[in-house]
Amino acid sequence: MSAVFLENLDSESYAQFLSREGSTVIIPTGATEQHGPHLPLGVDAMLSRAIAAEVARQVGALVAPEFSYGYKSQPRSGGGNHRLGTTSLGAAALTGMIDDVVSSFIDQGACNVIVLNGHFENYQFLYEGLDNAVARAGRQGSGSRGVLMSYWDFVDEHTLAQVFPDGFLGWDIEHGGVLETSLMLLLHPELVDMDRVVDHPPAVLTPYDIFPEDPGRTPASGCLSSAKGATAARGRLLLEAISGAITTSLHIELQPTFPIGVK
Amino acid sequence: MSAVFLENLDSESYAQFLSREGSTVIIPTGATEQHGPHLPLGVDAMLSRAIAAEVARQVGALVAPEFSYGYKSQPRSGGGNHRLGTTSLGAAALTGMIDDVVSSFIDQGACNVIVLNGHFENYQFLYEGLDNAVARAGRQGSGSRGVLMSYWDFVDEHTLAQVFPDGFLGWDIEHGGVLETSLMLLLHPELVDMDRVVDHPPAVLTPYDIFPEDPGRTPASGCLSSAKGATAARGRLLLEAISGAITTSLHIELQPTFPIGVK
Amino acid sequence: MSAVFLENLDSESYAQFLSREGSTVIIPTGATEQHGPHLPLGVDAMLSRAIAAEVARQVGALVAPEFSYGYKSQPRSGGGNHRLGTTSLGAAALTGMIDDVVSSFIDQGACNVIVLNGHFENYQFLYEGLDNAVARAGRQGSGSRGVLMSYWDFVDEHTLAQVFPDGFLGWDIEHGGVLETSLMLLLHPELVDMDRVVDHPPAVLTPYDIFPEDPGRTPASGCLSSAKGATAARGRLLLEAISGAITTSLHIELQPTFPIGVK
Amino acid sequence: MSAVFLENLDSESYAQFLSREGSTVIIPTGATEQHGPHLPLGVDAMLSRAIAAEVARQVGALVAPEFSYGYKSQPRSGGGNHRLGTTSLGAAALTGMIDDVVSSFIDQGACNVIVLNGHFENYQFLYEGLDNAVARAGRQGSGSRGVLMSYWDFVDEHTLAQVFPDGFLGWDIEHGGVLETSLMLLLHPELVDMDRVVDHPPAVLTPYDIFPEDPGRTPASGCLSSAKGATAARGRLLLEAISGAITTSLHIELQPTFPIGVK
Amino acid sequence: MSAVFLENLDSESYAQFLSREGSTVIIPTGATEQHGPHLPLGVDAMLSRAIAAEVARQVGALVAPEFSYGYKSQPRSGGGNHRLGTTSLGAAALTGMIDDVVSSFIDQGACNVIVLNGHFENYQFLYEGLDNAVARAGRQGSGSRGVLMSYWDFVDEHTLAQVFPDGFLGWDIEHGGVLETSLMLLLHPELVDMDRVVDHPPAVLTPYDIFPEDPGRTPASGCLSSAKGATAARGRLLLEAISGAITTSLHIELQPTFPIGVK
Amino acid sequence: MSAVFLENLDSESYAQFLSREGSTVIIPTGATEQHGPHLPLGVDAMLSRAIAAEVARQVGALVAPEFSYGYKSQPRSGGGNHRLGTTSLGAAALTGMIDDVVSSFIDQGACNVIVLNGHFENYQFLYEGLDNAVARAGRQGSGSRGVLMSYWDFVDEHTLAQVFPDGFLGWDIEHGGVLETSLMLLLHPELVDMDRVVDHPPAVLTPYDIFPEDPGRTPASGCLSSAKGATAARGRLLLEAISGAITTSLHIELQPTFPIGVK
Repeated sequence: MSAVFLENLDSESYAQFLSREGSTVIIPTGATEQHGPHLPLGVDAMLSRAIAAEVARQVGALVAPEFSYGYKSQPRSGGGNHRLGTTSLGAAALTGMIDDVVSSFIDQGACNVIVLNGHFENYQFLYEGLDNAVARAGRQGSGSRGVLMSYWDFVDEHTLAQVFPDGFLGWDIEHGGVLETSLMLLLHPELVDMDRVVDHPPAVLTPYDIFPEDPGRTPASGCLSSAKGATAARGRLLLEAISGAITTSLHIELQPTFPIGVK
Repeated sequence: MSAVFLENLDSESYAQFLSREGSTVIIPTGATEQHGPHLPLGVDAMLSRAIAAEVARQVGALVAPEFSYGYKSQPRSGGGNHRLGTTSLGAAALTGMIDDVVSSFIDQGACNVIVLNGHFENYQFLYEGLDNAVARAGRQGSGSRGVLMSYWDFVDEHTLAQVFPDGFLGWDIEHGGVLETSLMLLLHPELVDMDRVVDHPPAVLTPYDIFPEDPGRTPASGCLSSAKGATAARGRLLLEAISGAITTSLHIELQPTFPIGVK
Repeated sequence: MSAVFLENLDSESYAQFLSREGSTVIIPTGATEQHGPHLPLGVDAMLSRAIAAEVARQVGALVAPEFSYGYKSQPRSGGGNHRLGTTSLGAAALTGMIDDVVSSFIDQGACNVIVLNGHFENYQFLYEGLDNAVARAGRQGSGSRGVLMSYWDFVDEHTLAQVFPDGFLGWDIEHGGVLETSLMLLLHPELVDMDRVVDHPPAVLTPYDIFPEDPGRTPASGCLSSAKGATAARGRLLLEAISGAITTSLHIELQPTFPIGVK
Repeated sequence: MSAVFLENLDSESYAQFLSREGSTVIIPTGATEQHGPHLPLGVDAMLSRAIAAEVARQVGALVAPEFSYGYKSQPRSGGGNHRLGTTSLGAAALTGMIDDVVSSFIDQGACNVIVLNGHFENYQFLYEGLDNAVARAGRQGSGSRGVLMSYWDFVDEHTLAQVFPDGFLGWDIEHGGVLETSLMLLLHPELVDMDRVVDHPPAVLTPYDIFPEDPGRTPASGCLSSAKGATAARGRLLLEAISGAITTSLHIELQPTFPIGVK
Repeated sequence: MSAVFLENLDSESYAQFLSREGSTVIIPTGATEQHGPHLPLGVDAMLSRAIAAEVARQVGALVAPEFSYGYKSQPRSGGGNHRLGTTSLGAAALTGMIDDVVSSFIDQGACNVIVLNGHFENYQFLYEGLDNAVARAGRQGSGSRGVLMSYWDFVDEHTLAQVFPDGFLGWDIEHGGVLETSLMLLLHPELVDMDRVVDHPPAVLTPYDIFPEDPGRTPASGCLSSAKGATAARGRLLLEAISGAITTSLHIELQPTFPIGVK
Repeated sequence: MSAVFLENLDSESYAQFLSREGSTVIIPTGATEQHGPHLPLGVDAMLSRAIAAEVARQVGALVAPEFSYGYKSQPRSGGGNHRLGTTSLGAAALTGMIDDVVSSFIDQGACNVIVLNGHFENYQFLYEGLDNAVARAGRQGSGSRGVLMSYWDFVDEHTLAQVFPDGFLGWDIEHGGVLETSLMLLLHPELVDMDRVVDHPPAVLTPYDIFPEDPGRTPASGCLSSAKGATAARGRLLLEAISGAITTSLHIELQPTFPIGVK
């Protein structure tokens, strides 16, 4: 399994990988963010890394070192940046970082660079960095392609119905909920303490943000819904649905050969 | 009506406004972006400005000059930045601009600064700028409050059912669709040409972005769904629902007095 | 008249406009800045927009949405940034904004991009953004041209003599004075209150700036001279002189065809 | 062992940790950089993380997620940024990232933040970010302390003599050499292939840099000296010397209590 | 004379200087810019440094090392950035530099920091940096004062009449003309070659800028007017008028004591 | 001698210089930094400028105006940024400045741009700026070359033995020590006061940095070792060794002709 992780390869093996047609690198992005009393702070990075590895095996890609820090947690999707354990980047640092890393991979010859996001708040800043990097490379003659995706956008209706038999209430309250906890129970069960899962009703979120945030507007637990229904079996359903759907998409989108105009 | 627009006030009247308890300024943000053959390029700024004016009258606020340019249009919500007529800002300029303008209002004594967004892609960059401005002001002793909202997040289920009697398919495909066209028919009918409304099925969007964008992935019309069902009457339903719901929220959130710690 | 405003066009009409030889876009820039008790805060943006429209009609150009916020008001030309009603951008935001918008127009095929400035303090920051945008585009093969101008630089001696029969004392004290007030009386008379025009002598300005500014160094009225002599007739003289002279200059400078090397 | 890694803690345990006097977080920083044919690309991050964990156990600290990407590899210390496998950040992204992460830890109450560097080229950019973060926090009343160190600066003369019995030739040529290989043999032997260790003489480096780099100026292997002398036993000597010396230094420098002036 | 230059002082003498009430530092700013065939490239920095020294002697200040590089030369005031010998900074670097240097002086206790500009194009960027530095320091309790001035703004009418007996045509065409050449003949005669002074009529400048610049719009000599009338005697008149007027202004503006609120 | 200084040349002579094959510009960089009671604040800039002039004469180059301000002084090499007289730039300003100036020289046709550093703390930030400038120019077709060096890296063992007959203790403690003082005694004896040389033992430096700095960790004198052994004769040995070695290196590295691909 470790063979899909780029950081474990020596430089000669990596050079051979890059010399192949359609070489693809996947960059998982997460966050260091509180996920309630039953989950560890690194959930977002752990899950995006694990899903990236599963997809990498299926499409013959490599997984780059994950981004362990993400954009500021927002109350409407993650509990808020004020909660202890949430250690965040601002927009400029996150955008600059993805721009530099993607540019570096493209410069060295990667045909496809996939950014697989695991922290909702990151998406637009990753978009800006990836757009800038690919556009700049394109102006210099590169034909490399970028793809940006968040893993939960690949959960299909059928899987949702199985994982949430009582009805799915929306991704916004899934922070620390059934989705993430089920995946963690499958992938890192030693880091989950189901005895400490909260049992409060789903958070009622406002359709707006206020500054400075009022901590009383989201549950003190840091979870936006209860993960009582989480199981490793549901985690497996989710992992298979997600990695399968991403793989299908990538088979459509990845450039299978060297890009036209490549150096 | 022009009395709610800050740019129409003389400086003495504005100074009096700022000297009142709970003084509130609303900044509408939009974009310059193609909206298909039947709508003008300025739709997003026009709508956020009009809704802001309606809300301002109800809560006693002033409307600041709107942001006419927005973040890059993205295919999954706006047709894409490659379409002619779409003239955009990058992340740094948009974030810097909102930060400076909000800081300027807070420095001069505004108790509440509301950013009312009318272009989906703007949200996270506005969040960053508003968060930075309010946090910086707070560290210097200001107690002013910021609020960030997108107007479509205030359309309730009942209104949705009336406006979309055949079923609502999601906000992502509403670019150039029934929502925006109905509001424009109400507010700026002279700028709408219903004879040129497209009649193709809703766009099928991928749950990911690719770079560089492939223009063939979204409809050539620039609309993500048909606006055939748009009417001024539906525009009125929407405007009343939205401005009413925003007003209700602001009555809860606005600081009615001078903030504690104000200079 | 609204036909010269880009935001009022649909995307197909705009695409046709861009497809013509010598297509020209004019970006008016202003400020949100106090202009004394008799003028509204939006004077600078209103005037640059109106003059741009007049010029656009004469040269067959379109007027882009104006920049409503400008660089910090300075005491030697505008009363100072400390006066209530003055809501400003810093240098980086203004420069970044003009760079992004100009780049966006050039990328989409505009042959000429004119920036028509209506706020003295903006000029150098607009210069930096426009220079960077055109130079970058040029390195990528674009032959598009940029032009930067402030409208008062086009008032000829003869017109000055008519508008200021008692002698012209210099542009630096014209903030809130006869020039701006006359143009506003012509273009937006409903926003001018001549009963409230100040009647103090022209401000005596130092040939230097101090930081932090001492508010006592400029008149408390916010005007740097009296607008008693302002009339709509003088506004017409000014508008015709300015728009005529700008049109003459643009006939010399605008590229009448597609630029060499255009994509 | 996993108990020292912050990302494995739940938010309540982490909050308890932060509530203790003298709470200390260590941020390991590395790079994604070729290290010759016998070592993996992730050496710098792996070693700084492992040493940080060892130190954390001894001083009761937590290890934050490591920085897996570092500043551009330079020929005089790392073989050069042009070699395949070297995926780097520019100065602004690295500095911005450490500034944001350190600020985030200080804001949440960490009394001491240690940055433990494992990639030579990072040092000055980490210095800038850490200096800015601590200075800014200090101006806002924080008394938190930062410490910046590179692990090899803690190898004493006695250990050097044991690890390099034939004489130590300088840190500059240790890229992919005996130091890093010995530590990897101890900590990640499964990722080292001693059969592929190069056997060429130490690189002869110029006392200057040229731009653009000439790849012929450093060995094609990517190593600046041979790691033939590397053994796990020497790795243990190094690890013990380094972690011991760092621990001794931290016992002197760490604030054992809440900083004066803490919120 | 060298005693007024800060770089020539030892640290103890400098510390004593800073410990006095009303301590004042003057930062001269110039450019590296062609000034025609008869003047050296460093004119702007040389003149601002010399004038700063003269003023420093009169007000008891120190002269900091001059800024030898300035903002891009513009055709309407300096011949244009395309001319050989003109080596320039962009806006961000110049603004960042003055901000950092002024902040550094204020942090170390300077009561007054004067920026004396010798290159027209610099002014607004120096304004931004100085404004930011003083405002930031002020928010942290500093009462230090900044002053920004360009030396030619202190030439009085009487002196003008003596130096330009045939009439003064405006500062904009003085690049490489009588003003600068006279001052150089007084201060650095060995660097002036009057045999090579151009003898063409004053440049006819447009009231706007175009991008990219057309080199044919300004004289090929690089001078905007002839310096035939320059003499060292006129240089002395200018130097005395300028330094006298600046000294008078500074006696009004400088804080003679430690600022209120100083640390 | 003044003929090697670019600022003393007129534009026509400079244009001739640039038109020659292999034209080379050397940019000296220093700092404004305390160097103890016996040396002036400008030592670093003075020495790099003087050495650059010596090298320029030997290789036929020009010396550009020196950078008089440098990166923050660090305790491990310069005494620390807190000491009075140390007036510093942050990373972004220094990097931006070198990037702009080098880009400007390359744009105007310089075949080689050498940055000769005289302040230890500058190196990495100069590297970033120079790397970015040369890489950007290279992508646009330039073949110009950059070289970055610190002068002390060219002192050979033999010279060291002569200058430090009692043994050389390392460059890190040479701040204000024998090296700099000897060179100053040779080049600017009027600015050195040997009666005030400190006589304390070499500073004992920690192998790490702490933030905020504790001023008690370095000698109050501001010197990291005693300069008692400094003489002008040793200064001559150093100057000759350094300029000779740099000249030898430049003869190897400088492009003797126009770069391939030059405009």
